[in-house]
Amino acid sequence: MADQSRLESVIALAQHRGFVFQSGEIYGGTRSAWDYGPLGTELKENIKRQWWKTFVRGRGDMIGLDSSVILPPKTWEASGHLATFNDPLTESLVTHKRYRADHLFEAYEKEHGHPPVNGLDDVADPDNPKVVGQWTPIRQFNGMLKTYLGVVEDESGLAYLRPETAQGIFTNFLNLLQTSRKKPPFGVGQIGKAFRNEITPGNFIFRTREFEQMEIEYFVPPADAPAHFDTWVEDCVNWFIDLGVSRDSIRLYDVPDGDRAHYSDRTIDVEYDFGFEGDPWGELMGIANRTDFDLKSHAEVSGRDLSYFDPTTNERWVPYVIEPSFGLTRSLMAFLLSAYDEEQVTTAKGDTETRTVLRLDPRLAPFKAAVLPLSKKETLTPLAQRIADELRGDWNVDYDETQAIGRRYRRQDEIGTPFCVTVDFDSLEDDAVTVRDRDTMQQERIPVAGLKAYLAERLVGA
Amino acid sequence: MADQSRLESVIALAQHRGFVFQSGEIYGGTRSAWDYGPLGTELKENIKRQWWKTFVRGRGDMIGLDSSVILPPKTWEASGHLATFNDPLTESLVTHKRYRADHLFEAYEKEHGHPPVNGLDDVADPDNPKVVGQWTPIRQFNGMLKTYLGVVEDESGLAYLRPETAQGIFTNFLNLLQTSRKKPPFGVGQIGKAFRNEITPGNFIFRTREFEQMEIEYFVPPADAPAHFDTWVEDCVNWFIDLGVSRDSIRLYDVPDGDRAHYSDRTIDVEYDFGFEGDPWGELMGIANRTDFDLKSHAEVSGRDLSYFDPTTNERWVPYVIEPSFGLTRSLMAFLLSAYDEEQVTTAKGDTETRTVLRLDPRLAPFKAAVLPLSKKETLTPLAQRIADELRGDWNVDYDETQAIGRRYRRQDEIGTPFCVTVDFDSLEDDAVTVRDRDTMQQERIPVAGLKAYLAERLVGA
Repeated sequence: MADQSRLESVIALAQHRGFVFQSGEIYGGTRSAWDYGPLGTELKENIKRQWWKTFVRGRGDMIGLDSSVILPPKTWEASGHLATFNDPLTESLVTHKRYRADHLFEAYEKEHGHPPVNGLDDVADPDNPKVVGQWTPIRQFNGMLKTYLGVVEDESGLAYLRPETAQGIFTNFLNLLQTSRKKPPFGVGQIGKAFRNEITPGNFIFRTREFEQMEIEYFVPPADAPAHFDTWVEDCVNWFIDLGVSRDSIRLYDVPDGDRAHYSDRTIDVEYDFGFEGDPWGELMGIANRTDFDLKSHAEVSGRDLSYFDPTTNERWVPYVIEPSFGLTRSLMAFLLSAYDEEQVTTAKGDTETRTVLRLDPRLAPFKAAVLPLSKKETLTPLAQRIADELRGDWNVDYDETQAIGRRYRRQDEIGTPFCVTVDFDSLEDDAVTVRDRDTMQQERIPVAGLKAYLAERLVGA
Repeated sequence: MADQSRLESVIALAQHRGFVFQSGEIYGGTRSAWDYGPLGTELKENIKRQWWKTFVRGRGDMIGLDSSVILPPKTWEASGHLATFNDPLTESLVTHKRYRADHLFEAYEKEHGHPPVNGLDDVADPDNPKVVGQWTPIRQFNGMLKTYLGVVEDESGLAYLRPETAQGIFTNFLNLLQTSRKKPPFGVGQIGKAFRNEITPGNFIFRTREFEQMEIEYFVPPADAPAHFDTWVEDCVNWFIDLGVSRDSIRLYDVPDGDRAHYSDRTIDVEYDFGFEGDPWGELMGIANRTDFDLKSHAEVSGRDLSYFDPTTNERWVPYVIEPSFGLTRSLMAFLLSAYDEEQVTTAKGDTETRTVLRLDPRLAPFKAAVLPLSKKETLTPLAQRIADELRGDWNVDYDETQAIGRRYRRQDEIGTPFCVTVDFDSLEDDAVTVRDRDTMQQERIPVAGLKAYLAERLVGA
């Protein structure tokens, strides 16, 4: 299956089955944000939990933080976002459409083999190649969303929604150092929403104005930064692979000088083959060496000493920071794409049909099991309900009693449920159920008393 | 211990031990929001997880949702928040301080036994009782935070940050109905941030402009609404009690006509005795009967049919909605206050000293266990580290090797860690450790091989 049609299939499935809804759909929708339906909410939660388990809870050198979206404006002065988190914006005098000037220049260079000598004066309107140089002056457009706190809308109440979760970690560096008794190398993990005023949101949940990040700021002795950087690149890629993303669909992009964010000495983008039209690759996450830029800058603006005193060497220094920054919703999209599969199967009647199956790692699957009474007859309901309720103590479990059993199996395959538990009329006699495996479609008869243990063995870490 | 000093002690402990930090502290801080440190992040996460387990995952009639903070403005037109989510604001002409006029009127009535006959003209400036009636006209001040999406700051890009998570559930009602195949009575649970432009944030994390909610919208046949309402009140109170809040510290307030939110036919506030100065009680959560107000209003504004067709009766009707709405950060504060205890204990030397202990339910405790090598000697480190790493596969585990063991026990008591695992020199011989119980301070010798099972038995559901 071509990647682009895979992308389309996954988007259709995600919307149809309740992973992702268009935000504010009944009001015509918005591309600024998406809503996560019952299945998407569970999948997102499972991704967060695996991430937290791997990178925070499971490690002795990591602690967690949950800092606020709204931070004092001084934060963004120190971080450089007020001065440098800008896009160069211009508007066509003819169509009044707005473009990023750097994108116009790139397109020009691609076409002519050299950049425009006279800047925008040389650039044609993409909507009408005969109209050349009809542009408003380039204006720096800041990518942070503003709001006003308090009762007057003036500078005194101006605040920004964070464009990255990272800064809350830097502003709390002293608090974290003092309360956790950690010493570099140590890191802080954080999951939360961030907001960016993207000029052109798009590509489903890939580029939105409201999104979620999973970020780590790992504080290290300056001399050790390059080695830690390499280790983190490896650990991050391995995390995706361990949870079902194939190595082939990932590539590393070493961002060259001049293209990196203002704070970064080195950045490697982990890109995933999303199958987008044009360039199929998109940034899944990035690992940056932020050096001591942020801590030094916050120290300067706040007047606080944000250095670390090493009692073993009696030296005082400002840690370097390695930042693995994951897009949570982008990761969700990559896990869905990686798990999506269509295969030809033979039905009971001997026909060939296409089975759609989400081969999600059981740790990520929204439902771990579905309980299916073979028929809607009331004799089966009490046992089936009791089994479902018992399993719900441990896992998220679906219960489905509508339509033919084959159809219900397909429905569970499509949303990635690893196990279907069928309660049939024999169950009332032998106190056993049939467990069907999503991937192999093999069925096994399991005593009800042993069901929880059977599933637990196959759902380790889920 | 008086409630107010308990409150002060808990706030001090929370800040000192890394539960809660003042947001943007190095820039003078803000009362708009707070940051949750390593322990607060785990505690908050544990509360969310218990809530989700009890009210969403554990029930067959519930599904989850995670909708966006930014919704189209039409949403707030339909919800009534644009028209009615207002506070009456006035400003002193002398001090230029701003007040809520209704608060000024209440204070006047308390003092004089009757409301001010001539409105603000009768009201004195709280800062100077001689100055009477010197106020700007009352202005309706909307409590939603604004932002602007896109490149121009005008009406076309105007958006609001949600003041409650509920509306995302209502706007997705059709999507949820179709994709989940649920029928009323069924409910939707959601956890997420909400923002309100409070005129006077305060009382630690109790009243902030950025906060988190855990909300349920439970859709029922209109005639059954009162019965479901009563059941939900009971279920909510029981949830708090089950997790360690005493029934004595909770009271129910049946909000009278005229004082309820515009959408509510009945509201019961669950109040908790926080020990605030003046009135010690504060709203922990509320259960509202929102009737069919929201669905009908969204149907009217969007032009979409948001009714439910019941195939068993062939009737079409708009469900009533029972809404249990929990303050997540307020719950966190209540759990901390309920768990806080000081007791007199006798030390090894025979002295009496005060032991501070957070008697948090193990399911909520940030660390489930702490591994403590008796001395920092290198002989103990490998075994202690290995034990900590093994336990980290299942739980959040602290590792502490600094200072005397008694001091370390106290440190873990103070943050509510249920079990301390001490590795001593005998451990190298007998391959066993000493496990100390937080509440009883009893110690037991447990083989390392059986440690995980020992803890798992005592940490069920954690």
